[in-house]
Amino acid sequence: MTGHTDEVVDHRPLIVTGSGIAGLSAAIYAGRSNNDPLVFEGDEPGGQLTLTTEVDNYPGFPEGISGPELIQNMKSQAERFGAEIENGIVADVDIAEGGSVDNRTQSGEPEERPFTVRLTNGDVYTADAVIAASGASARTLGIPGEDDLMGYGLSTCATCDGAFFRGEDILVVGGGDAAMEEADFLTKFADTVYIAHRREEFRAEDYWIDRVLEKVDDGEIEIMRNTEVTELHGSKEEGLDHATLVSHPEGHPTDKLDDPDTETTEFDAGAVFYAIGHTPNTEYLEGTGVELDDAGYLHTRGGDGGGQTATDVDGIFGAGDVVDHHYQQAATAGGMGVKAALDADDHLEELERDARAAAGSDVAAAESDD
Amino acid sequence: MTGHTDEVVDHRPLIVTGSGIAGLSAAIYAGRSNNDPLVFEGDEPGGQLTLTTEVDNYPGFPEGISGPELIQNMKSQAERFGAEIENGIVADVDIAEGGSVDNRTQSGEPEERPFTVRLTNGDVYTADAVIAASGASARTLGIPGEDDLMGYGLSTCATCDGAFFRGEDILVVGGGDAAMEEADFLTKFADTVYIAHRREEFRAEDYWIDRVLEKVDDGEIEIMRNTEVTELHGSKEEGLDHATLVSHPEGHPTDKLDDPDTETTEFDAGAVFYAIGHTPNTEYLEGTGVELDDAGYLHTRGGDGGGQTATDVDGIFGAGDVVDHHYQQAATAGGMGVKAALDADDHLEELERDARAAAGSDVAAAESDD
Repeated sequence: MTGHTDEVVDHRPLIVTGSGIAGLSAAIYAGRSNNDPLVFEGDEPGGQLTLTTEVDNYPGFPEGISGPELIQNMKSQAERFGAEIENGIVADVDIAEGGSVDNRTQSGEPEERPFTVRLTNGDVYTADAVIAASGASARTLGIPGEDDLMGYGLSTCATCDGAFFRGEDILVVGGGDAAMEEADFLTKFADTVYIAHRREEFRAEDYWIDRVLEKVDDGEIEIMRNTEVTELHGSKEEGLDHATLVSHPEGHPTDKLDDPDTETTEFDAGAVFYAIGHTPNTEYLEGTGVELDDAGYLHTRGGDGGGQTATDVDGIFGAGDVVDHHYQQAATAGGMGVKAALDADDHLEELERDARAAAGSDVAAAESDD
Repeated sequence: MTGHTDEVVDHRPLIVTGSGIAGLSAAIYAGRSNNDPLVFEGDEPGGQLTLTTEVDNYPGFPEGISGPELIQNMKSQAERFGAEIENGIVADVDIAEGGSVDNRTQSGEPEERPFTVRLTNGDVYTADAVIAASGASARTLGIPGEDDLMGYGLSTCATCDGAFFRGEDILVVGGGDAAMEEADFLTKFADTVYIAHRREEFRAEDYWIDRVLEKVDDGEIEIMRNTEVTELHGSKEEGLDHATLVSHPEGHPTDKLDDPDTETTEFDAGAVFYAIGHTPNTEYLEGTGVELDDAGYLHTRGGDGGGQTATDVDGIFGAGDVVDHHYQQAATAGGMGVKAALDADDHLEELERDARAAAGSDVAAAESDD
């Protein structure tokens, strides 16, 4: 962040952080509400859905649609209604220095609204409202070998990297939908796909479990239950060589390393794919005072009626996987994005009414008492 | 309801009431979860979206999609994953007589799960879980002339009935998105479209207000603010003749009929279209003990994490306009439908675990403690 300018590049009514389903859905509605939204794509433009080959469960596409195509559709749709979608990663959001509701021009418009939005390239924007739709990033295990081998035999994205490992044995780590989907997908390339899951039961959709079990019957997938990875071995030059696995009949073997029933094996594989969940991207919001839960998810008001996506800071709204630690579906993220845009619009209209009232136009205030 | 049989036609894990966006989105996910969903279409198959010519703001369709086509897409998608969508109107849902968790067959499966679902044609189904996605129906004013003229010059659906009134003056009642959209649409047919709104300010999206104001400039639409309709005059034979309007400079004129500033006029028009909101369809749930709010909307738990669509009755979930009195968008209804299907799936898996445990298979219970 050295060498950045503090000059404000632009002021916008609404800035959206993130260009996944939640951010783009918000942008579509915000554009239609004339809120001139500016979307910063973040470091994973299009979000997690761009890593998905086929989206079968987003309502409206009976034969499915590819993730990138669905995202492209939403981008076009948002742009059609006036949204601007720009490359840029938000480094931090803060209350604007010198910005306050009392700091107004002659016209009654505040000179600066509460938020400054600073990008990693140093550019600074201001905004009257911010929708945080920054999603979540793939989680890692934090085991030895991980840092060295990420991108060299270790991956968090089967769609991105699967094809590099044709004819090899591939180990997938996880037990949710993503793990099943990645395992299923990787059978295209792998000799055999192995799934290591720390428990006995999978938490994936039946749909995915069934598909995987069919491939188990066909000999394409092998499931290792109650098994965890403790170390990855290999080098950037040679790639992954093998992984150290531990297993215990009652699951969660890394909690039971001293237990005599815990077994350790060295497992040869050409690649390891992590599918063990995601961490919400909220660091850039730290200066704002928004509340996060223990896992770092952004807290929103919820409940009935309007303002469901409001955070604990007036003017900052949250939508998608940065908020949702449970459902995490394209359709649920889209629904939240729409709500956030409508909530932000209410907020912006309130600011406008306040500004008009402060400028002495009491008519506006009288009109709004219903 | 005379002449119905009490014989149970079918038992299903999951029954969905309503085939709008919420119900079909739920059906897509429930099908994928192997919950064999049966959807009853209700008396407005496809829900309110089928009355919309062009849906521009459902994320994923950059050029828009017609309401009926979007609904048809979702039907096909739900059927692809095993959902059954049947003609039928649910008359009431109740706890099954004789159904209880103790009433089990040898296999440990309960003979009857809690809910009976009775259709208006007398057919009875049972279900382990119910997703209420029964939407909301167009509201009326309850003024004289209304009952006689509904369908004969009075309508709640511009898309359905607009073309009958070519070349006539048409009066639209309301001030929200629906009123603006209907007024805009009716300019295709009308000589002039008049909008009567009881307040000064519209609560519609700026997008719609702008479109209407453009047509005001063009002379195609005329806006009558602070104006309400108090009576409709005409006959089934001759259709609508005129409407009695009252207006007051401070709005809500029917609350101020004795005020000297309230003016009454007789307004000639070929048709009146109501676009004054909707009443949630919840009557059939009365026997279940679910909680409704004052306006009759179904109360769901909300909050963070799973179970957001749970009602106050275990096993009944709610999604879409029957719950949502604020956002009421296709995308938000879809998101809620998806959540409801996932919540219902959790409930059904819990029932299954309970059943296995009751049958003496304690393994299942031990597995589920994580």
